[in-house]
Amino acid sequence: MRKEPISGIFVPNIAPYTKDGRLNEPELRKIVRWLINKGVTGLYPNGSMGEFIRLSFEERLRLVEIVADEANGEVPILAGAAEANIDMVLETCEFCAKIGCRAVSITGPYYFKVSQESIEHYFREISRQSPIDIIMYNIPAFANEISLPVIERLAMDCENIIGTKDSSADMSRVMHLIHDIKSKRPDFSVLIGWEEIFIPAMIMGADGGTLSTAGVIPEVFVKMWKEFSSGNIEACKQLQFKILTLFKTMLEATNFPEGFREGYSVRGFDVGRARQPMSPNEESQMAGIRNQIACILADCGYQDAAAICQANKMTQSSVSGIDTEEIVRAVMAKIGKR
Amino acid sequence: MRKEPISGIFVPNIAPYTKDGRLNEPELRKIVRWLINKGVTGLYPNGSMGEFIRLSFEERLRLVEIVADEANGEVPILAGAAEANIDMVLETCEFCAKIGCRAVSITGPYYFKVSQESIEHYFREISRQSPIDIIMYNIPAFANEISLPVIERLAMDCENIIGTKDSSADMSRVMHLIHDIKSKRPDFSVLIGWEEIFIPAMIMGADGGTLSTAGVIPEVFVKMWKEFSSGNIEACKQLQFKILTLFKTMLEATNFPEGFREGYSVRGFDVGRARQPMSPNEESQMAGIRNQIACILADCGYQDAAAICQANKMTQSSVSGIDTEEIVRAVMAKIGKR
Amino acid sequence: MRKEPISGIFVPNIAPYTKDGRLNEPELRKIVRWLINKGVTGLYPNGSMGEFIRLSFEERLRLVEIVADEANGEVPILAGAAEANIDMVLETCEFCAKIGCRAVSITGPYYFKVSQESIEHYFREISRQSPIDIIMYNIPAFANEISLPVIERLAMDCENIIGTKDSSADMSRVMHLIHDIKSKRPDFSVLIGWEEIFIPAMIMGADGGTLSTAGVIPEVFVKMWKEFSSGNIEACKQLQFKILTLFKTMLEATNFPEGFREGYSVRGFDVGRARQPMSPNEESQMAGIRNQIACILADCGYQDAAAICQANKMTQSSVSGIDTEEIVRAVMAKIGKR
Amino acid sequence: MRKEPISGIFVPNIAPYTKDGRLNEPELRKIVRWLINKGVTGLYPNGSMGEFIRLSFEERLRLVEIVADEANGEVPILAGAAEANIDMVLETCEFCAKIGCRAVSITGPYYFKVSQESIEHYFREISRQSPIDIIMYNIPAFANEISLPVIERLAMDCENIIGTKDSSADMSRVMHLIHDIKSKRPDFSVLIGWEEIFIPAMIMGADGGTLSTAGVIPEVFVKMWKEFSSGNIEACKQLQFKILTLFKTMLEATNFPEGFREGYSVRGFDVGRARQPMSPNEESQMAGIRNQIACILADCGYQDAAAICQANKMTQSSVSGIDTEEIVRAVMAKIGKR
Repeated sequence: MRKEPISGIFVPNIAPYTKDGRLNEPELRKIVRWLINKGVTGLYPNGSMGEFIRLSFEERLRLVEIVADEANGEVPILAGAAEANIDMVLETCEFCAKIGCRAVSITGPYYFKVSQESIEHYFREISRQSPIDIIMYNIPAFANEISLPVIERLAMDCENIIGTKDSSADMSRVMHLIHDIKSKRPDFSVLIGWEEIFIPAMIMGADGGTLSTAGVIPEVFVKMWKEFSSGNIEACKQLQFKILTLFKTMLEATNFPEGFREGYSVRGFDVGRARQPMSPNEESQMAGIRNQIACILADCGYQDAAAICQANKMTQSSVSGIDTEEIVRAVMAKIGKR
Repeated sequence: MRKEPISGIFVPNIAPYTKDGRLNEPELRKIVRWLINKGVTGLYPNGSMGEFIRLSFEERLRLVEIVADEANGEVPILAGAAEANIDMVLETCEFCAKIGCRAVSITGPYYFKVSQESIEHYFREISRQSPIDIIMYNIPAFANEISLPVIERLAMDCENIIGTKDSSADMSRVMHLIHDIKSKRPDFSVLIGWEEIFIPAMIMGADGGTLSTAGVIPEVFVKMWKEFSSGNIEACKQLQFKILTLFKTMLEATNFPEGFREGYSVRGFDVGRARQPMSPNEESQMAGIRNQIACILADCGYQDAAAICQANKMTQSSVSGIDTEEIVRAVMAKIGKR
Repeated sequence: MRKEPISGIFVPNIAPYTKDGRLNEPELRKIVRWLINKGVTGLYPNGSMGEFIRLSFEERLRLVEIVADEANGEVPILAGAAEANIDMVLETCEFCAKIGCRAVSITGPYYFKVSQESIEHYFREISRQSPIDIIMYNIPAFANEISLPVIERLAMDCENIIGTKDSSADMSRVMHLIHDIKSKRPDFSVLIGWEEIFIPAMIMGADGGTLSTAGVIPEVFVKMWKEFSSGNIEACKQLQFKILTLFKTMLEATNFPEGFREGYSVRGFDVGRARQPMSPNEESQMAGIRNQIACILADCGYQDAAAICQANKMTQSSVSGIDTEEIVRAVMAKIGKR
Repeated sequence: MRKEPISGIFVPNIAPYTKDGRLNEPELRKIVRWLINKGVTGLYPNGSMGEFIRLSFEERLRLVEIVADEANGEVPILAGAAEANIDMVLETCEFCAKIGCRAVSITGPYYFKVSQESIEHYFREISRQSPIDIIMYNIPAFANEISLPVIERLAMDCENIIGTKDSSADMSRVMHLIHDIKSKRPDFSVLIGWEEIFIPAMIMGADGGTLSTAGVIPEVFVKMWKEFSSGNIEACKQLQFKILTLFKTMLEATNFPEGFREGYSVRGFDVGRARQPMSPNEESQMAGIRNQIACILADCGYQDAAAICQANKMTQSSVSGIDTEEIVRAVMAKIGKR
C-alpha cells in the first residue's frame, strides 16, 4: 500500500496565559475548537509559536495534552518535541505517541553550535528509539540548521522520519527538498513554515504549510487550500499576495511571537502577553500594531476587526486630539520664520 | 501609450581571455553570435559574471562595445555600469547610451559599507543625470544590499529607473517586489538573477531572468521561456528542476565564476581562466568538475558534451584504473581483520 | 564603606555524568575539592560549560547545590540562572541566595531574537525582584547579545547588578566596559570569559576571568593570577601565550564543550560524554584530540598526561596496528602500478 | 645581519578633493608635510582611508606619487596596491618600487568570495614577481579575510612578505599572529589597524599601528609611541582610553571614512566630501558630528577645535534660534491641554 505524505494547513498553536502568567486552559481549548470548526487540516502545539522554550517541561507536555484532548481525534496533531537532550526528547515522543499525536517535530539542537555530523547522528538515535513518526524542523534563525545532505540521508534511511517543516524562508532549499528527496521518496512531506513563499512552494510541489498566520485568519488559508486543491492557481496567487502585509506586520511587531498573539486578540481571544516582557515603550507600540492588524483584517471583511479599527481611528483623531502631522507642520512653520 | 516592462531571458556575458590574459575579442563575438542565434532575448555584459571588477576601466567599456557591435541591434543590451564613483558611473552611462544599449545595470556601492539613505541618494543622483534607463542590481553577496523600501521609493519617483535585477536568491523579497511595486507601476521590470527560483518567480509575476546558466545551455532557457509564454507551467517546472544540479555544480566550482566559464568551455568555446588564479590543487579539481558538467549536459542530450563525458569516464576507469570505492572497501577489510 | 569588585580566577564547572547519563555527584565533588585545593578564586556552576541547557530544571538546581555544599563557603560561587522565563530565573535566584552563592549569572534571552529594549527591561525586572546580586553574562555566539549601552545603563541604575562576564572575545567591547563603566562605578566587575584575551584585558583593567581552561590547568591560572597581582607582567604574557594552543585545541574539538571535558579526563577525572551525542566518526576523532591535549599538558610538565601522551604514541603505531601512513603508501603504490 | 620589523605609527592618508571633485594636490602635500613635522613614523597612502576603490587607476598612482614626492625620503611609505587583478597589482608594485616606497600593502581579493587556497596562491604569485616588499592587509569587513594559517604559511615561505596590517579588531587573532609567527620570524611585522586595541596589542608584542585617528591627532599618537618606547605603560593606557570616544565618533559618522575626513577639517584642512554622496539629511547630521569632534578635541587642549566647539554652541542656542528642547516642551504642553 502506497503511503501518502502529510499535507494541508497545520496551525502552530500559541500558548495563551492567564493574568498571573499560567497556561490558560479554557482559552486554549476555545482556540483549538474554533480552528477545527474553521476547517484547518491539523494542529501543531509546542513549537516556536507556542514559546515552548519558555515553558517548563511539565507545561510543555500539558499544553500538548490539552490540544490533543480538545481535538479528540478530529484532526491530526504534530507536536513539538525539541527538548534539549535525547532522553527528554524520547520521553516527549512517548508521551505524544500515547495521547495519539500523528507525529513529533524536532528542531536541530539549539544554544550550542553543533556539527552537521552530530546533528545527523542525533536524529538517527531519536529515529531508532522513537515510538512515533518524526518531522525534521529546520529553523536556522533560532536553532542549528539541519543541512540539505543530512535531511536527504535521513529521509532515505529512516522510515519513521516522514517529513520536514522548513521555516528558513529559503526557496532554493525548498526546490532541492522537493527535487532531491520527493523524487525518490514521494511520501516524504515538505511542509512550508514561512508564509511569504507558501503558494510558490505549493505550486512547485510542496505538501502543505505550518503557518502561524493561519491561526489568525484560518478562513483565508482554508480557502487557499481549497482553491489549490481545485487547481485554481490564480485565486491562490491573489490570496498569497493579500496576506503579505498582515504576515510582515505581525512578524516585525517588537519580539516574535508577540504580533501573532495580538492577531489572536483582535480575533477575540484572551491570550495575554508572551513570557518575554516588553519595555513600557514597546508595550505602547503594540497598541498601534494592534490597530494596524485590525485594519488589515477589516479590509479583508472581518467585522469584529473593523470595529476595533474604526474605534482606534476615532481615538487618534478626535478623542485625544493629537494630530502629529499638524504639529509637525506648525513646528516647521515656526522654525521657518526665524 | 502604455510602456511594457523589459522581459525575457538575458544572458550575463563572460569575459573570454587570450592565453596572455587579454580580452579575447574574436571568441567574445563568437559567443555573442551563438547566443543570439540560439534565440536568447538579450545580453548583459560587464556584470559579476563578466568579472567587471577585475577589468580595467578601459577594458570594461571595450567589452560592452564589442558585445553591442556584434549584436548590432538584433537584441537589447543591458550593460553593467557599477563603477566605484558617480563620475565614472555617469561616464559609463553616456558611453552605453551612445552605442545603443537598452539600459544600464548598477549595483549598490561595494567594498565600503554604505547607509541605505546614502544608497538611495546615490541612485537619485545617477537617475537625475543619466542619459539612459537604469536597472537597480541587488546582489547582497558582493555589494551593499539595496533595501526594499529604497527600491520601492526609487521605482515610484524615478521614471528612468525601470527595473531591478535581483540576485539575492530571496523569494520573499521577490514577492514584495512584485506585489509592492508592480501593482503600482506595471512597467517596472523584476528580473531574476538566481536560477533556482526562476520559474517560481515567473509564475508569481516576475518579468524575466538574467541567468548565467542560460549562457551555457541557452537552448533549455529559450525553451523554458516559450513554454512559459504558452502557459505550459508543467513543462516549465520540469525544466526548472532539471537545471538545479547543473547550476549548483557550476556555482560551487572553486571560485565564482570559474564553474560557469568551464561550462562555456564544455560547449566548445575557448574562454581561458578567470583573472583570480586558482591554486594548483584547485586547478586539478576543475578537471573533475569539467567532467561533471559534461556528463550533466550529456544527460540533456548535448552530443559534444557526451563525447567529453565518455572520454573522461574511460580515463578514470581503465586508463588510471583508480576505483576509489574498491580501494576503500579493501582498506576497511584489512583494518577489520586486525 | 567602599565595595570591591569581584575579582580573580573563577572556574566554569562541567557536569560530569555517570555511565547511564545522570549527574555524577561524587565526581563533581571530587573536581570541586581539587579545584579549591589548587587555589582557584571561585566556582561557576550551571553555565555554558556545564551544559545547563541540556539539564532538566531539577538537575540544574541540584548541580549548583552540590557545588555549593562541597565548597562549603571556602570560595565564592557565581551560579548560572539563565532560565527561559522570568519566574524560573527568579526561582533560581532565590534558591542560589538560600544556599549561599555570591551572585547569579544571567545570559541574554536565547532561542528567539529579542530587542535590546526588551532585554534591558528583562534585566530591570529581574534586578527589582532578585534576592541575590546579578552578573550580566554576554555570550553572543549562543544567546542574544546584551549591547554595551544596555550594560552601561543597567550598571548605573541597578545596585545589585554588580558585573558582567564577557565571552564575546571582543577586546574593543572590553575596552569600553572598562572605560565607560568602571570609571563611574569602580566596584562593577568585568570578568573575561575568553582565554585568548585574558591577560591583555587584565592589563587594561579587567577584574578577573571565568575561564574554562582554568578548570583543566588550574595550576597555570593560579600562577598567572599571582604573577599579575605581583605586577609581574612579563611572566603573565609568557603564560598567556603558552595556553593559546591548549585552549584552541579544546575549543575546536568536535562540539563545545567536548574538548574541555576531554581535558578533565586527561587530568584523571571520569566525566563521561556531553549530552549531545557525537557521530562514531567524531568519537574516533576525539581519541586523537585526547592525545593532543595530553601531549600539550606533558609539555607543560604534567606527569600523568605525559604517560597518556606516550602510551598513545605506542598505541598508534604498534598495538592497534592501524598505520594510516602505511595504508596510504600501499594504496598509492597499488594505484601507481596500473 | 638581523633585520628589524617595520614599527611605529603609520598614518593612512586620506584623499583630499577640490570643489569639483578632483584630487587636491596642494592640500594633500600640506597634510603630508604637517604629519611629518608632527613626528609620525611613516605614511600609508592608497588604502581604505584613502578611498582607493573610488579613485581611477591613474588617480591612485598619482596620489601615491604626490605623497612620496612630498615626503621626499624623510619617512617610510607603505603604499596600497590592492588592485583587482594581478597584472594591475604588479604594475602598482613596480611603480611604488620605482618611486621609493618601503613596501606595498595588499588586501585579500574583494567583491567576489574567494577560497583561502586561491588567496594563498594569489599572494604567492604576487610575492614571486614583486620588486618590492609586501604587507598582507587583513580587513574582513571590506575584503575576503586572509586566514591565520594562510598568513602563517606565507610568512614562513616568502621573504619579501614582511608583515601584516590587521584591521579585523580581533585581539585573539593578533595574539596568534604574535605567538605563531613572530616567535619563528621575529622580523615579521604585526601592524594594528584598529585603534581600540592598539595599546593592548603593543603590550603583547605588536610592532606598531596604521591608525587613521593618528592622522587627526598625530600629537597624541606620537606621544603614545614615545611613552611606549620608554616603557611607560600607565601613560599609554591613559592615552589609549582617551582616544576611544574620538575614534568611535569618527567611525560611526554616516559612512566610513566621512567622520575621519571631518576630523581633518576640524584640524584646519580643506579636504572636501568623500566620493560616496550622502543624503541631505546625513549632510545635516555631519554638522553635529563636526561639533562633537571639535568639542572632543577641545577637551584635549586643541585651541582651534575649541573655537569651533564654542562657536557651534552659540549657533545652536542663539543664532538660528532653534531650540529643540523648547519646541518639544511647547508641543507636549499643547497636547497636554486637550
